[in-house]
Amino acid sequence: MPAPHLDLIAIPGSLRAGSLNRALARALPELCPDDTGLEVVGLRDIPLYDGDRDTDENRPPPVEALKDRIRESDGVILVSPEYNHGVPGVLKNALDWVSRPSYRSPMAQKPCGLMGAAPGGSGTMRAQQHLKVILLGMAAQVFPHPGVAVSRARDKIRDGRLADEDTREFVAAYLADFASWVRRVSAT
Amino acid sequence: MPAPHLDLIAIPGSLRAGSLNRALARALPELCPDDTGLEVVGLRDIPLYDGDRDTDENRPPPVEALKDRIRESDGVILVSPEYNHGVPGVLKNALDWVSRPSYRSPMAQKPCGLMGAAPGGSGTMRAQQHLKVILLGMAAQVFPHPGVAVSRARDKIRDGRLADEDTREFVAAYLADFASWVRRVSAT
Repeated sequence: MPAPHLDLIAIPGSLRAGSLNRALARALPELCPDDTGLEVVGLRDIPLYDGDRDTDENRPPPVEALKDRIRESDGVILVSPEYNHGVPGVLKNALDWVSRPSYRSPMAQKPCGLMGAAPGGSGTMRAQQHLKVILLGMAAQVFPHPGVAVSRARDKIRDGRLADEDTREFVAAYLADFASWVRRVSAT
Repeated sequence: MPAPHLDLIAIPGSLRAGSLNRALARALPELCPDDTGLEVVGLRDIPLYDGDRDTDENRPPPVEALKDRIRESDGVILVSPEYNHGVPGVLKNALDWVSRPSYRSPMAQKPCGLMGAAPGGSGTMRAQQHLKVILLGMAAQVFPHPGVAVSRARDKIRDGRLADEDTREFVAAYLADFASWVRRVSAT
């Protein structure tokens, strides 16, 4: 019996058109294993979190759409740069919205993986450390893996395409492991 | 010779009208020591960080105003809730804007203090831990102090006012120590 189809989403943490992390996210669908689909979902329309608007009557429609998309997905991969040794506010802001209500949100028990690309040597690892704490803080399941940290990424991503073959193989292996883990830990 | 006047700002990490942290920030001016002024500066008009808009031609005016206000201030106090064991995206997003250009931003060498109020027991300490790493990541000076963590804050902040006398005394002592430290470490 074949494994059931997996529906994954990837969320880039940057809004910049030429972002290395958006390019990395765009490479994921073609590197996924068989029976696994992946859609890149952006954050441009998610407004600043405001608890006064976080009600069923007032919640912004783009937030509702993101929550629905996460809820129906089998797993989420955050593909994020590191800003100031931490998580981009743009990404944390979206996570703040989708993490409500606490422990009963679409993120609760959701299998999550981490990736990042950076021009320098650290390859976003400090942001990923913060994200692990944050994701577990909203009761998401965090893929127990060092993560994908594409350092010196301007050498590997050219003209908006992940060109480096070693990195493509590493990312493809990560995605295969992630998909296998998602199937194992999913509630259904 | 009297000490020179200090001009501090406090930035709340929440946009919610009834926020405990906004109430804590509003209490600060009257708890400051002599010769120290403090203005509360909100983040509602700061858009999502977008590197493509972070140019002298395209930078949003509210971002420029915040950078100017930080630059002219003698010190900054972040008064923030903790969301998902981390920093609210709203606050991190503003820090991402004002931290540019790296190491030459208005935040570089700026003396910074941390405070937070929370309904529960941890009193925002996990967010403050992340903020220390983040602030040092943008070369700000971080006040070497455990910080102000107002736990069980709904008992202490009533009708939008910091009412608890012990907490008022603790915060006033913190502000006096902070002001003394700011005078010591300021470049001028």
